[in-house]
Amino acid sequence: MKTTKPTILVVNDDGITAPGIKALIETMAEIGRVVVVAPDTPQSGMGHAITIGKPLRLDKVELYDGIEMYKCSGTPVDCVKLAVTKVFKGKKPDLCVSGINHGLNNAINVLYSGTMSAAVEGAIESIPSIGFSLDDYGWEADFSHCTKFIKQIALQVLQNGLQAGTLLNVNFPNTKDIKGVKICRQANAKWTEDFDERVDPYKRKYYWISGVLENNDMGEDTDIWALEHNYASIVPVQFDLTAHHAIPLLNSWDFSV
Amino acid sequence: MKTTKPTILVVNDDGITAPGIKALIETMAEIGRVVVVAPDTPQSGMGHAITIGKPLRLDKVELYDGIEMYKCSGTPVDCVKLAVTKVFKGKKPDLCVSGINHGLNNAINVLYSGTMSAAVEGAIESIPSIGFSLDDYGWEADFSHCTKFIKQIALQVLQNGLQAGTLLNVNFPNTKDIKGVKICRQANAKWTEDFDERVDPYKRKYYWISGVLENNDMGEDTDIWALEHNYASIVPVQFDLTAHHAIPLLNSWDFSV
Repeated sequence: MKTTKPTILVVNDDGITAPGIKALIETMAEIGRVVVVAPDTPQSGMGHAITIGKPLRLDKVELYDGIEMYKCSGTPVDCVKLAVTKVFKGKKPDLCVSGINHGLNNAINVLYSGTMSAAVEGAIESIPSIGFSLDDYGWEADFSHCTKFIKQIALQVLQNGLQAGTLLNVNFPNTKDIKGVKICRQANAKWTEDFDERVDPYKRKYYWISGVLENNDMGEDTDIWALEHNYASIVPVQFDLTAHHAIPLLNSWDFSV
Repeated sequence: MKTTKPTILVVNDDGITAPGIKALIETMAEIGRVVVVAPDTPQSGMGHAITIGKPLRLDKVELYDGIEMYKCSGTPVDCVKLAVTKVFKGKKPDLCVSGINHGLNNAINVLYSGTMSAAVEGAIESIPSIGFSLDDYGWEADFSHCTKFIKQIALQVLQNGLQAGTLLNVNFPNTKDIKGVKICRQANAKWTEDFDERVDPYKRKYYWISGVLENNDMGEDTDIWALEHNYASIVPVQFDLTAHHAIPLLNSWDFSV
């Protein structure tokens, strides 16, 4: 670890006023200089979206004593890009942490999650990055039992670094009695949608997305298993999406035209 | 291949009126029964975003003779979810194709791309899925030299299937003289942002995202290399983001609190 205080970028997807990011800011302030760049409105489910069709705003705000903070009109990924370019001006922070998300980002949720996509973008920028999420979707969620784990995980990342092209996806069960931390793989689970169909006052149909996360993965090394057994799950994540194992078979196909 | 005509879901991110999806619809109509579910407005850069904060619209439209088409108010991923649930009602199509995107989705662009995220969502739904993109960002792009390759790739996928948890990311160079197809890995390249900073009439700053894709990957097995050498690139993509190789090292860390 560097002997000077590390600089820590804090982002999220629930918006800059969310209790989850407040808990993360307070925890990170114990170990480093904190800079916050977070969306000015909730951006849950934004995945790795960036804003290209309209201009972006980035404005300094003062919410918590002694913390440098900026609100951004864009997505969580926009926040990281603007932080790197316009706030840090290329002098990268030592750590990027995202969350604490109000709700789990385990299994396939890593793809839909703005929280995790912000952390992925941090990793693309070669910043050691971690996303944190709690199994409680409520605005009034209690994050207090997670913070000692978050602090230790962040300290370990600052001390050891992360392998190039990887980041961490950390999820906490909603219990005061967390048994410990498990290193896991992403469970093979998917959402089965069940759109809520309604009719507006003008007799036109509309839909609200809803559904159930169905887990067909019986492995005991998955994030779902760990959370169900009251462990915090840590999945190392990568942004090279190449299915390397599929290359040899594809090379045997006939692509002649 | 089934002896009955395959059913093919066509989606995109440039919107249902884009010339790129028209070229893809025409090509797919040569080999199967086509059903289109596409965004009613451009959704480039939406990544794997889903719409959770507002209701979704899905309306039948008639644009091309004999083609069943629906426009959707949401993201490309919303389109696939609504297609599976509300259009196909659980009876899945034989193939999901996305594009043809006006612009490349090679290298790290796979993460930002609505086109590719729609194909990823198709794969999550266990539908053999392919995203197609052309190196021409113009609305008036000419897709005619790509379509014979697209047809052959789609036929190969229908005939052979794809390995579970994988899909294909296909990119075409902007040349009439495509040398052939190469199976590739995702190049290790990233965007270096250069936000265009402006001042509005009310004296407030705003930003347009822009940047340069910088490739530090000299491999000759990458999608960038193939495209630069006038080959169409095919990268097999997976949605298990676990960095399995990072698990042993993380297990040696101290997470005690």
